[in-house]
Amino acid sequence: MPTSFAPLKNDTFLRALMRQPTEYTPLWLMRQAGRYLPEYCATRARAGSFLGLAKNPDYATEVTLQPLDRYALDAAILFSDILTVPDAMGLGLYFADGEGPKFERPLRDEKAVMALRAPDLGSLQYVFDAVTQIRTELNGRVPLIGFSGSPWTLACYMVEGGGSDDFRSVKTMLYNRPDLMHHILRTNASAVADYLNAQIDAGAQAVMIFDTWGGALADGAYQQFSLDYMRDVVGRLQRDKDGVRIPCIVFTKGGGLWLEQIADIGADAVGLDWTVNLAQARARVGDRVALQGNLDPVILFANPDQIRSEVAKVLESFGAPQAGAGHVFNLGHGISQFTPPEAVSVLVDAVHEISRNMRG
Amino acid sequence: MPTSFAPLKNDTFLRALMRQPTEYTPLWLMRQAGRYLPEYCATRARAGSFLGLAKNPDYATEVTLQPLDRYALDAAILFSDILTVPDAMGLGLYFADGEGPKFERPLRDEKAVMALRAPDLGSLQYVFDAVTQIRTELNGRVPLIGFSGSPWTLACYMVEGGGSDDFRSVKTMLYNRPDLMHHILRTNASAVADYLNAQIDAGAQAVMIFDTWGGALADGAYQQFSLDYMRDVVGRLQRDKDGVRIPCIVFTKGGGLWLEQIADIGADAVGLDWTVNLAQARARVGDRVALQGNLDPVILFANPDQIRSEVAKVLESFGAPQAGAGHVFNLGHGISQFTPPEAVSVLVDAVHEISRNMRG
Repeated sequence: MPTSFAPLKNDTFLRALMRQPTEYTPLWLMRQAGRYLPEYCATRARAGSFLGLAKNPDYATEVTLQPLDRYALDAAILFSDILTVPDAMGLGLYFADGEGPKFERPLRDEKAVMALRAPDLGSLQYVFDAVTQIRTELNGRVPLIGFSGSPWTLACYMVEGGGSDDFRSVKTMLYNRPDLMHHILRTNASAVADYLNAQIDAGAQAVMIFDTWGGALADGAYQQFSLDYMRDVVGRLQRDKDGVRIPCIVFTKGGGLWLEQIADIGADAVGLDWTVNLAQARARVGDRVALQGNLDPVILFANPDQIRSEVAKVLESFGAPQAGAGHVFNLGHGISQFTPPEAVSVLVDAVHEISRNMRG
Repeated sequence: MPTSFAPLKNDTFLRALMRQPTEYTPLWLMRQAGRYLPEYCATRARAGSFLGLAKNPDYATEVTLQPLDRYALDAAILFSDILTVPDAMGLGLYFADGEGPKFERPLRDEKAVMALRAPDLGSLQYVFDAVTQIRTELNGRVPLIGFSGSPWTLACYMVEGGGSDDFRSVKTMLYNRPDLMHHILRTNASAVADYLNAQIDAGAQAVMIFDTWGGALADGAYQQFSLDYMRDVVGRLQRDKDGVRIPCIVFTKGGGLWLEQIADIGADAVGLDWTVNLAQARARVGDRVALQGNLDPVILFANPDQIRSEVAKVLESFGAPQAGAGHVFNLGHGISQFTPPEAVSVLVDAVHEISRNMRG
């Protein structure tokens, strides 16, 4: 591990997360290193497979930096898979052709659940090596975000054995055997906290917890089975590294109804999907947290004028920046693999230009 | 069309929708006539196909009544497909094996959109015949609900040509060519209103508008492209038939953040999915509308004690019934085809028994 990295040239993203004044609204895009970029597809082809790409620090570094070479994005995010932690727990992550992630050994019964153990972090060294290498090669251009899936979101894949339309297996366990579900979630929360702390040790300058499937839970179940465990993770995170604050972002897709509660778990910022009105969200959370979001990714299929117009709507919805408020522009979900790359240029320029003008 | 039907023996459902006192909380289940019932599967096998079932009034009547023979449900809902209207517009509805609905002629370009016309209601006569036949055979046991997809939800299928993960085609049209999208939605709204009014003429005693995909829209776009057109439909509905009030329910899945606005379009009741806290929802809408929902359908895979416990939570969340409040118990989404039929007995008995005791 290097003892020092290059000083940060653009800290706009970190300042926005900490609700400090910025000259413009910083932005990055969920899944910004991805299949919409031809150079990503070329690297992936050389790597031979998605896991071959994600598990190789050289390739992971290469694709993490690709969108930054094209666009004036204000943060980089570690390229990795959301399921590295359960893979390291021995569940056997694999990708079937044309399908999403799957596990060879999902948690289908009590015996499998009770055998679950937090992973040896050594088996995730490839992730931490990638973090250090990316941070080094970024050379201070923008901050590097580390990330993990939330304990609940990991549990969904671990019990279902892959994606799901209705989360029938994992929810049946939740309702029928809450003791087993809590055992999984406790194990996951501890593993996720250790995993994020090791990313911070390796060089991550902010961390994000993706609760992709929290919005599939009923009110009540969400608080008990997703939010409480994210609170646990946030409470275990190192928040300062060598005297520098490491901000933490939490994002429950479909969680807009629970915004006040999400804002209370101790994170610096809350991610929002596109169903949430930013002005109302800001009124609901006050100065407790910064907000990150929330353009509908499909807007990137529209023409440049429409993209600019929708960017302006999002910025105006958040409203004039002022002391104590922080906004990081993002999509409300990952960028589509079919996005025309030139639309992202329009988006990035529009966010920077319009938000600078709003600060007049 | 018969000039009179048998008098209603159980009007609990209608009274709850009109926020009048009831002896217990009435319930019905979205998709209650469906594949989880072996007798439904038997009828469908005889019909040869889903469309053969849905388009034949005898079969439609038979499957509509099946769940009422098993369970003490408080309403029947017309068995039909959500896409009958665009099918009658000439888009060519079909079902590929093991897949959802598809259209042979989706609205992919300006020419196709501008050629769209409201359907000849005569081509939907099989639906109205089914309504009259079901109402006759119900013989006053419980009220019959008619339904339609919302203008936006129909448009999603009409432009995408089937189901979608990201609604990329329909949203791209929405952002790039709002004029074309509004043309589709105006046409749909007019057709949906005519369709529901004809169902009311044929014997439907309440109507429901399913906005299954409204929750896929961004804040702002939802109001403009889904809610405004549902308001238009509600405004065109006949609300009294032969001196009897015909209540109207609207349901946007994933629309919990917009509840106040949905409650203001003139409907009698608003459906809620399971992410919404009923106590908070009731505080937000006051006495403007009744509420319908909102058990997570996956709870029907749990054991009887858990089902009863979760039913109690939903009923207690709505709170003590009192003047001006109305609650119709339902799932937050359609019942899963994998639901054990005996779980529905537990549910129905629990709702009736616990809600009677709450009034005790």
